[in-house]
Parts: sequence; C-alpha cells; structure tokens
Amino acid sequence: MTHLDRFAVLAANGRAARRVLEAAGPDARSAALRAAAAEIRTRAKAILDVNATETEAARARGQTGAFLDRLTLDAERLEGIAAGVEAVAELPDPVGGERRRWTRPTGLEISEVSVPIGLIGVIFESRPNVTADAAALCVRAGNAVILRGGSETTGTSAALVEAMRAGLRAAGLPEDAVQTPPDSDRAWVTAMLSLDEDGCDLVIPRGGKSLVAHVREHARVPVLSHLDGVCHVYVHAGADPDKALRITLDSKMRRTGVCNAAETLLIDADCAPDLLPVIAGALAGTGCALRGDDAARKLVPGMETATDADWDTEYLDAILSVRVVDGMDGALDHIAAHGSGHTDAIITEDDAAAARFLGQVDSSVALHNAATGFSDGAEFGYGGEIGIATGRLHARGPVGAAQLTTGKYIVRGTGQVRGSWPR
Amino acid sequence: MTHLDRFAVLAANGRAARRVLEAAGPDARSAALRAAAAEIRTRAKAILDVNATETEAARARGQTGAFLDRLTLDAERLEGIAAGVEAVAELPDPVGGERRRWTRPTGLEISEVSVPIGLIGVIFESRPNVTADAAALCVRAGNAVILRGGSETTGTSAALVEAMRAGLRAAGLPEDAVQTPPDSDRAWVTAMLSLDEDGCDLVIPRGGKSLVAHVREHARVPVLSHLDGVCHVYVHAGADPDKALRITLDSKMRRTGVCNAAETLLIDADCAPDLLPVIAGALAGTGCALRGDDAARKLVPGMETATDADWDTEYLDAILSVRVVDGMDGALDHIAAHGSGHTDAIITEDDAAAARFLGQVDSSVALHNAATGFSDGAEFGYGGEIGIATGRLHARGPVGAAQLTTGKYIVRGTGQVRGSWPR
Repeated sequence: MTHLDRFAVLAANGRAARRVLEAAGPDARSAALRAAAAEIRTRAKAILDVNATETEAARARGQTGAFLDRLTLDAERLEGIAAGVEAVAELPDPVGGERRRWTRPTGLEISEVSVPIGLIGVIFESRPNVTADAAALCVRAGNAVILRGGSETTGTSAALVEAMRAGLRAAGLPEDAVQTPPDSDRAWVTAMLSLDEDGCDLVIPRGGKSLVAHVREHARVPVLSHLDGVCHVYVHAGADPDKALRITLDSKMRRTGVCNAAETLLIDADCAPDLLPVIAGALAGTGCALRGDDAARKLVPGMETATDADWDTEYLDAILSVRVVDGMDGALDHIAAHGSGHTDAIITEDDAAAARFLGQVDSSVALHNAATGFSDGAEFGYGGEIGIATGRLHARGPVGAAQLTTGKYIVRGTGQVRGSWPR
Repeated sequence: MTHLDRFAVLAANGRAARRVLEAAGPDARSAALRAAAAEIRTRAKAILDVNATETEAARARGQTGAFLDRLTLDAERLEGIAAGVEAVAELPDPVGGERRRWTRPTGLEISEVSVPIGLIGVIFESRPNVTADAAALCVRAGNAVILRGGSETTGTSAALVEAMRAGLRAAGLPEDAVQTPPDSDRAWVTAMLSLDEDGCDLVIPRGGKSLVAHVREHARVPVLSHLDGVCHVYVHAGADPDKALRITLDSKMRRTGVCNAAETLLIDADCAPDLLPVIAGALAGTGCALRGDDAARKLVPGMETATDADWDTEYLDAILSVRVVDGMDGALDHIAAHGSGHTDAIITEDDAAAARFLGQVDSSVALHNAATGFSDGAEFGYGGEIGIATGRLHARGPVGAAQLTTGKYIVRGTGQVRGSWPR
C-alpha cells in the first residue's frame, strides 16, 4: 500500500471517530482529557525514557542549543503538559452554543450553532508539547486529529499519543480520535496535503517558515497557517513615557524568538526627541541592537542604519528597527506597507488616536497600551493555542478550541413551503 | 505583460481601493450601492442593447433553452437587478460590529469585531445578474472585488461593472473597488488562482461542478466553494401527513435545477405504507420520476429501481430517489454515507426526534418541518447570496455580506506588560 492509501485508512478511522466524539457531548470529551492527563502522569517514566533516548540521539548528531532544548522533556515539563491538557478539559464547551438566532417573516426560526470542524491534520516540528496541546484542543472541540510531528521526537510523540488514546478509551470514546502515522516519513505529509474530500477538513502547520510555505504550496485541503510576525509598537505623541518604555522593552525583549515579539518601533516626530534616547538606552542595556532611519539616528548617536529590507524583516532576535514617523498617517502607512497583519500596538493616552489606530490598522490583533506578547492563546484565556493565524479566512489571531469549530444553521418551521402544493 | 502581471495590477488597484472602502464607513458604502442602482436604471437601454447582441450571438452559435435563458436580460430582470442592489444597500452594516467582548485577569479588555476580508475574486458563468449581486454584497461588507464572468456575456457584465463603478465614484469612493478583466481569456482565471500573497484574499467560484473542481484543483489562495447539493427530506414516523406531502413536493419540484432541491426522500418503514403511495402519486402528477429501493417499490407499483449510484447523485432534474428506512438511525446513517453536507430536512411532529435529527445530521442547513428551498440567502434575510458554501471552514451555508467579513481582535490595556521592566 502507498502512503496515500495508508493515510486514507487513518483518515477514515478519524472521520468515523469524530462522528462519535461529536455525538458523545462535552462531558465525555472533558472526561477523556482528564483521563489522558492522568495517563500522561502514570506513564511519565516511560515517556521520559523514550524522550531521553531521542534527545541523546539528536545530540549525537550534533544538535545543540535552542533546537535541542525544544526536544527535551523533564519531569517538570511533562507535568506542565499534563496540567495543560487538564486546563483544556475545564474550558467552557466550545461546541453546540448558539451564535445567533432570528425569526423570518415566513415564521421560520433560524439559529446558527457551533459544531466541530471534523478531522484536523496538524503538522509540526520536533516539539513534544505540541502533541498533547494540539490533541487536547482538537478533542475538546469535538474534532478528530492526525498528528504528524518532527522526526527527532517521533517516539516521544507516539508515547504521548498513546496516553491520549488511553484517555479516550477510559471515557468510552473511540481512540482513533487521536492518531499519528507509524513513522516520520515525509510521504505522510504529502498524503495529508493531497487527500481531498475523504481526508482532513483542515490542515494546520505549526512551525517555521519553510514548513508553512511547503504546506501552503502543496495543500489541496484548507489550511490555517501562520506566516510572518512583523509586529510594530507605535509610540504616539500622546504616549505616557513610562508606558512607552516598558511596553517597548517587553514587546521586544521578553522573548525575541516568538512570533508576537515586536520587530519595529515607530515613534512620532513630536515625542521622539524626548523619548527615543531613553527607550534606545534601555533597549541597548538589555542587549538589543537598534537599526534606525536618519531621523532616529540623529537622536541616538551610534545607531546602525536600517536598510529597506529591515522594515520587512522578522528578526526573531535581539534586533529592533526604529523609524520616526510624522504622526498617525505615517505610522498607519508604514504598517500597511511593511506589516504582516499579525499584531500591532499603539501607546498613547489620547483615546481618539487610539480608536483611530485600533480601527484602521489591519492586524489580527491590535493593542492599545499593552505589550504585543499578549497576542497569545493563553493570555486570551483560550487555555492554550494551536497557533496564531495570519490568514484572513475562518479565524485570525490566536486559535484555541473555539476557533476549531464551524457553524451550522438550524431552521425550525411549522410546515412552510415556498410554492403552493399540490398544484 | 503576461496575464499574471496584468492581473497583479488589478489586484494592487483593488487592494488600495478596499482600504479606502473600509475606512469610509457603512453610510458611504450604502450610498455607493444606491447610486449604482440608479446608474443601472439610467443605463438600462445601453445594457439591454449589449445583452441583446450577446444573446443573439449565443443563439446563432446554437445555444438554447435554460442556458440561453440565463444569459438573457429584459427590462423587468434588469429592474430586479437594480432593486437587488438597493436591497443590499439597506442591510444592517455587517462590518465593525462586536462579535464578543471579555475581560482578562490582567485587566485587558478584549473584543472581537467584524472587518472586511479584503480583496475577493469571484469566478462565475454567463449569468449577468451575478455581476451585480456579487459586487453589491462584497462592497456592502467593505471588500473590493474582481469579477471574472463567463465569455458569453462579457459585454453585459462589463456594462454592469461600469454602472457599479459609476455608483462608487458618485459616493466619493474608489471605482477600483469593483473591477473586471478586459476580456474573457481563461488566463485571467489562472492568474486569479495563482497570485498568492499580493492577490485575492479569497476566491469564490459560482457555477457548475467543472468550474468549481477546476478552481479547487488550481487555487493557491483560499476558496469558498459549493460542491454537490445531495439534499434529503426525511419523513419520520411522527410526520404530519399533509406537511410531509407538501414539503416533499416543494423541496423536489419547486425548482429542480437548484442546489437546494431535494434529491432523495427517506421515509420511515412505520409510516411508508400509509404515506408513500400518496406522496409518490402527487410527485408523479407533477412529472417527477421516482427511483426506489425494494421496500419502496413494493408500496408503489411501477416505481423504477434505484441503483447504488442514485443515492449519491445530484439529479438537478425531476427525478427523486426513494428509500424506506428503519427509523432515525437508518436515516442518519444514509445521510452520513450519501449526503453532501448541504441541506437536509426532517418532517415530524415529534420534537425529541426533530432535536436529535437537527443535532446529529452533519449539514450546513438542517431544517424541521420546512422545505429545503429555504436554504437560501434571500430566505435567510441576507438580501441575496454569493453562493451556498459546503466547505467546513469560515462559512457554511448561504453566504451573504456578513459572511464576507472576518474577525479582528481589539485589546485595550492600561500599560500591561508580561515581564518586569526595566530589568
């Protein structure tokens, strides 16, 4: 059998399981997640042993630093994973709720309710925590999931998947609601992206740019993906200096490798002479390199020069580009030209200016007087996230369990027809 | 310049226009649509003249019947188009409304608002009315649109597009919010489906199966599409006989060529001996051919035999397949195996049975005691529809202006950061 044929079997199993999962109701799905968390704890030693073997092998192949760190589980991290699954179990049920209801002149009563999407494929890199996060969010919303993780931690992922499946069984639900291919052959990715009508209803790539680009290039199925996070902090002339300082520092330097970190500081010409030297000094003090336009460099001697490419770059590093803008129009124009529609913040005490920025900036998350790092599923109260979507369809911004549902119309009548019968 | 290069110019114009359209607010967008309707009326003779030339040419090429009828405008149909544009102008504003709002323990106040999707491409066949319908719905929701219609009515579509553009100008809005390529070369379709990040945010194919299949096969951009409408009427044992009769007749025979027409009647074994002969007789009286399973054929002598293929067929004709089922489970299993997730109805006076069917049938529109023809944008009160989506992402069911929006998160803070600064 080809990988496509074998994937079709997984997909058929998943599609059958998800129908049962939807019908079983929210309490059974939560119970399965609580049982899965218990299974993760019970199996902790076996999971950590597999992970130790895999991380050792990666180290032997020369992997180091942040990459190796992301592969690695320890008792504390594993407990964090189990607790995360439990937190998702306690979320409000994202399925079945009424989004809206109205009555037509015909007497028909129409309501739109939330229902599971169906079968979701998740393609991710070697980050074991994603296995449990993604499975928990999918199951909570009544979806089945097929998880294809990175090759360095296939065994760790499989052990976590087995714990999730045991949790499903314990709750009387079909274990095939959570599946993973038996090995890390890239042909599974190709199959997941190719199988159209009988395959996944949605594929979510979670990882770096090359993974996401590959998925978008080859997918025959709908994709919910994250592209660049070129996020801006705009310090408006009406900004409170202390807020401007702390929010810029936090947005850039709290964690530099994450998609919601700021990459560009825009600052109004009116306040730049007072504020920019202070902010730049504080940033430099935390190890951040600055690259500015001419106006910024005049105010901060020694600042490197920003090239045109800088404005479009997601550094994911301790580097910040800095531009002095001529008021709100300049800031909005810059973001429209160079932003990635991910997350942008304005710092100001001027409510009218804030309202204009929040209304006009075309970002999935627009913030006023808050750091860009709050563009995050956990910070939104979603109990985690399966990613931050930068596309414009279905969901934008942090994707939690509620975003893994779709709509369904229920129409209640009393015998209405459109024609006159018998005729 | 290649068609791709030339399409990129249209797309850039559209993307610039849509930013102005969004900022201009709902009153300006409604004013543009009212002005466009007036322009359609003012230009009626010129539009009808172009259309007469095109329909005559199609007739000369041997086109007849329903196809030719769909190309043809007359004064009454054109007035209907203008009135439809006005109706969309009077809809509640679908943009800017708050979908939900909540406050986090951090003090952040988060709201999700509706915003335009952006630039929408619509690919349709030679149906002039779609030009104005689609343009009006897109503009009402703050989107720019590029319309690529069928080759038989390129001139008619262009004349209607010119009226829409004149309406935009009259309201002080950029005319490039509504564009159409200068000719009907299929290369425009290829370009629309190929241009990724700088092109359309969404492409909507509106037409027959081969068009939709082509778009899904080749699109590198998100697609909202309609596939089959294999719709069911399920007559439950608890059905009121008169409702069962009228709803079945209306669902099948009101218009047979539309996607929300019923293709299969499922009837409970308990009531089939009483009801099926009556329903079958009435259907036969309207010219409907019936194809049944063995149980149905025993009750209705002379009924043709349904083959396995019948259960999966969208006839779009005066043909109905008929199956006697053993209660709710049989009906739900049949629809799960053979339905297309479009529209399905149950006829019953038993509210518990209705609730189970409405909850478990996996259709974009599930109806109780109402004909399948009510699965329609106008009947939903959407002022029209750009199609009925059968995919599971973004929107399912009738797509009106409100479904041509996406979400955006607005986060209001008072200086919140996630770390502690300066550190």
